[in-house]
Amino acid sequence: MSQEFATGFPSVRQIQNLIRDQQAVEVKLMTGDLLSGHILWQDPQCICLQTEDQSKHQIWKQAIGFLKYS
Amino acid sequence: MSQEFATGFPSVRQIQNLIRDQQAVEVKLMTGDLLSGHILWQDPQCICLQTEDQSKHQIWKQAIGFLKYS
Amino acid sequence: MSQEFATGFPSVRQIQNLIRDQQAVEVKLMTGDLLSGHILWQDPQCICLQTEDQSKHQIWKQAIGFLKYS
Amino acid sequence: MSQEFATGFPSVRQIQNLIRDQQAVEVKLMTGDLLSGHILWQDPQCICLQTEDQSKHQIWKQAIGFLKYS
Amino acid sequence: MSQEFATGFPSVRQIQNLIRDQQAVEVKLMTGDLLSGHILWQDPQCICLQTEDQSKHQIWKQAIGFLKYS
Amino acid sequence: MSQEFATGFPSVRQIQNLIRDQQAVEVKLMTGDLLSGHILWQDPQCICLQTEDQSKHQIWKQAIGFLKYS
Repeated sequence: MSQEFATGFPSVRQIQNLIRDQQAVEVKLMTGDLLSGHILWQDPQCICLQTEDQSKHQIWKQAIGFLKYS
Repeated sequence: MSQEFATGFPSVRQIQNLIRDQQAVEVKLMTGDLLSGHILWQDPQCICLQTEDQSKHQIWKQAIGFLKYS
Repeated sequence: MSQEFATGFPSVRQIQNLIRDQQAVEVKLMTGDLLSGHILWQDPQCICLQTEDQSKHQIWKQAIGFLKYS
Repeated sequence: MSQEFATGFPSVRQIQNLIRDQQAVEVKLMTGDLLSGHILWQDPQCICLQTEDQSKHQIWKQAIGFLKYS
Repeated sequence: MSQEFATGFPSVRQIQNLIRDQQAVEVKLMTGDLLSGHILWQDPQCICLQTEDQSKHQIWKQAIGFLKYS
Repeated sequence: MSQEFATGFPSVRQIQNLIRDQQAVEVKLMTGDLLSGHILWQDPQCICLQTEDQSKHQIWKQAIGFLKYS
């Protein structure tokens, strides 16, 4: 695994927590889309968001504006 | 092959599965375009999507907002 | 930590100051969103902005247009 | 030449084929522009598209949404 | 400092001159914003623009469309 | 100089030719702006375009949609 994905970084660790807790999140994309759901997995390039209709959205991190959670 | 394309990463492996199964996917691009079809191949830079009119769309990964599948 | 995150760089050091002082900032994103709040943490990839409704926005640095402060 | 430009990758090889065959292509850019023509050359950063008015468009690959061909 | 920030490159040297001379500049961002002011500092990732209302805008270089000066 | 700026690459060499010949070009940016003028210099990060009003536009290459010339 590359250094950029070291789990010691807060940005990676927070997403791991969101996956573990199956927490509801919102993802705002560069395309303008706002998606709601919970995160199934992440890797250095992508996160996978399952939305309420059970479809999966593989999202490249460079396309994310922000990831919102409470 | 570069480390980023290691097939052990879920983002790469999922696309390999979609190719193998010729599964229907939707691709939302940064341009706002939403394309439907199935993926013919991937490499570290691109995926190639064949749409229903049989034309091929070579899509750079950095231009993808999300890749949706069931 | 990678060289790009060296705290000697003004861009990193300024954000550290904003975190320490819990200073009000505005973040304009590539998506067009303008978010107001204070920064909780940064790492090489992201900053985390807490907005007035106490929700957290994990923002990838490549999605930032500008970070405004007085 | 860098590894990313290795001609063994389908994304590079396909473009080489399009150049050799002077095949008609469409390029959709992140700017929203849709250009039609044939590709004169590629290198790791750019492709050069000659449009029907004989002008040349040097296009950075990171600005491409998709490259469409039959 | 990384090679990309070598002061021998015109793009870096020009900005150093603009800082030294406190020259008026315009910055057009990918967000569509057009900001006017003078540059306080640069590093490999960012420039900091002070606008006429004395607020500071930390701008990531990848978000800049162009930097205009006379 | 980094390998990516090797003058053997057509994308770099073409721009060198445009500079030498002071040739008229159009640059379409990701911001939607279309600028006309001639190129004064390039380095690995930027090109500098002088427009007809004699102002200079320092343009980051990642912000270019296409560079058009005859």
